[in-house]
Amino acid sequence: MTVTNRLAGVLAPVLTPFAADLAPDAGRLVRHCRWLLDHGCAALAPFGTTSEANSLSVDERERLLEALVEGGIPPARLMPGTGCCALPDSVRLTAHAVRRGCAGVLMLPPFYYKAVTDDGLFRAFAQVIERVGDNRLRVYLYHIPPVAQVGIGPKLVERLVRAYPRTVAGMKDSSGDFENTKIVLELLAKDGFDVFVGTEKLLLANLRAGGAGCITATGNVNAAAIDRLFRGWRSPEADRLQEEVNGVRAAVEKLPVIPALKAIVAHHARDPAWLTVRPPLVELASDAREALLAELGARGFAMPGLRS
Amino acid sequence: MTVTNRLAGVLAPVLTPFAADLAPDAGRLVRHCRWLLDHGCAALAPFGTTSEANSLSVDERERLLEALVEGGIPPARLMPGTGCCALPDSVRLTAHAVRRGCAGVLMLPPFYYKAVTDDGLFRAFAQVIERVGDNRLRVYLYHIPPVAQVGIGPKLVERLVRAYPRTVAGMKDSSGDFENTKIVLELLAKDGFDVFVGTEKLLLANLRAGGAGCITATGNVNAAAIDRLFRGWRSPEADRLQEEVNGVRAAVEKLPVIPALKAIVAHHARDPAWLTVRPPLVELASDAREALLAELGARGFAMPGLRS
Repeated sequence: MTVTNRLAGVLAPVLTPFAADLAPDAGRLVRHCRWLLDHGCAALAPFGTTSEANSLSVDERERLLEALVEGGIPPARLMPGTGCCALPDSVRLTAHAVRRGCAGVLMLPPFYYKAVTDDGLFRAFAQVIERVGDNRLRVYLYHIPPVAQVGIGPKLVERLVRAYPRTVAGMKDSSGDFENTKIVLELLAKDGFDVFVGTEKLLLANLRAGGAGCITATGNVNAAAIDRLFRGWRSPEADRLQEEVNGVRAAVEKLPVIPALKAIVAHHARDPAWLTVRPPLVELASDAREALLAELGARGFAMPGLRS
Repeated sequence: MTVTNRLAGVLAPVLTPFAADLAPDAGRLVRHCRWLLDHGCAALAPFGTTSEANSLSVDERERLLEALVEGGIPPARLMPGTGCCALPDSVRLTAHAVRRGCAGVLMLPPFYYKAVTDDGLFRAFAQVIERVGDNRLRVYLYHIPPVAQVGIGPKLVERLVRAYPRTVAGMKDSSGDFENTKIVLELLAKDGFDVFVGTEKLLLANLRAGGAGCITATGNVNAAAIDRLFRGWRSPEADRLQEEVNGVRAAVEKLPVIPALKAIVAHHARDPAWLTVRPPLVELASDAREALLAELGARGFAMPGLRS
């Protein structure tokens, strides 16, 4: 693909591997990122929800981003998550990502305090943007009410785009509510605002409505197939390609998604170290793991070239 | 009061003052803490929900705790909040609080990931306790499902107390559901487990059921009256004292509580700097502020001796 600041296609919120003592494993992370870029991912969103990023300290996140860039992952293909509860943390991670040349950042709203107002959330994003104060910054707003509980509704999205049109470049809509996605697309897609859905189940619908792609947990294991759908969305095969990726998605999302994805990577890389999650998550029970792998095997699922 | 590791009575989750540039204001914080200890607070819980602690970085929290101790606030009367989403952050803040001699710590569960299991939450707390690895540590579990969304149910509380009987010393129950509080008291109060309710509205009920006190936002402004209820709970005046504190509580909690409390302190200290909140919170609109102050004035509410 041609790499520009305008990202499109399939992005994976990259799983974070941990050592047995729960320290992040930068070596395995870099290898997994390389494999993803070689197998269907247009770009990567490390430090997303699926990355257990909210279980990492700010120092750990900075060190891992350094390791990625030093490990040869092109920053022009990186959209790290940088939104934290505390303003200084979001500012620090965002400024660091910009300094390292990342294409953009994926920004959660501060998510501890509930029932906050759009005025308060506007200020939160505005403070980060103004304190970072760098023309190179591209912010993708991260709307994931099922997890963060604090959402970024269409009116707030529009207000932020109008206030910072060069900076607020797009969003990830993980609401699972395509009506919400459509409202944002109708408001803002014509201005070049890039909307990614949070699941490949909505990828075809998103592309048909003017969206840019998807940032999806299952991109960690199935990006090649999802990328075929992305590339073929105008073809007569599109609906069949959508159904194909839906099957793998369904097998994964009936389980806790993060440990399920780690179990898949561990199996295909023959590397049980990948099973480790940080608390409060727990790894899959072995019977659930075996059933998942058997179901995927029956679908002919594979991760060619994956090594530990 | 006699200071022991076994805290009881009224604790305030101390408001955090900010400068105009949103930096924490350690001087005002120390002065407010001294005033609180002199006006009804048995101890203080800095870095709680009301403290906007989740809007502070780990570095800021450490520096403010240093300032409190260096400013003469006795650590034996401190129960700082130390529970974060990320394990290394919780370990670092908890170890720091122990090193500085704090009576205990108030520990939120990791609150980003939802629908987590009791096994995962048990591991999260166990990892903090074991990594800190200090006999002086006293953990008070912080159950606040309306905000954190992730709760600490009675079964998990009991499991943690059984696993770490010397360390898990009590809890703050901010569920607002006194049935939950009673279940915990019946399970554990006989073993010396100290249950604080999260609002003075439930203080009398809690004390009658064997609880230890309350850790309450309004303790920032009304601790003397709440402390009279605490000291008089066996007296014939108890129900009247309860009604009295309920009136102030009701006036505050019909508004966003943190900006409302800051408005009250700003007014009585004649110090508008206290109005500042960090995003995503916003200060009260001036009409709401005036109405609140008028209602409290009509009740004869005062904060004697408060200065900027």
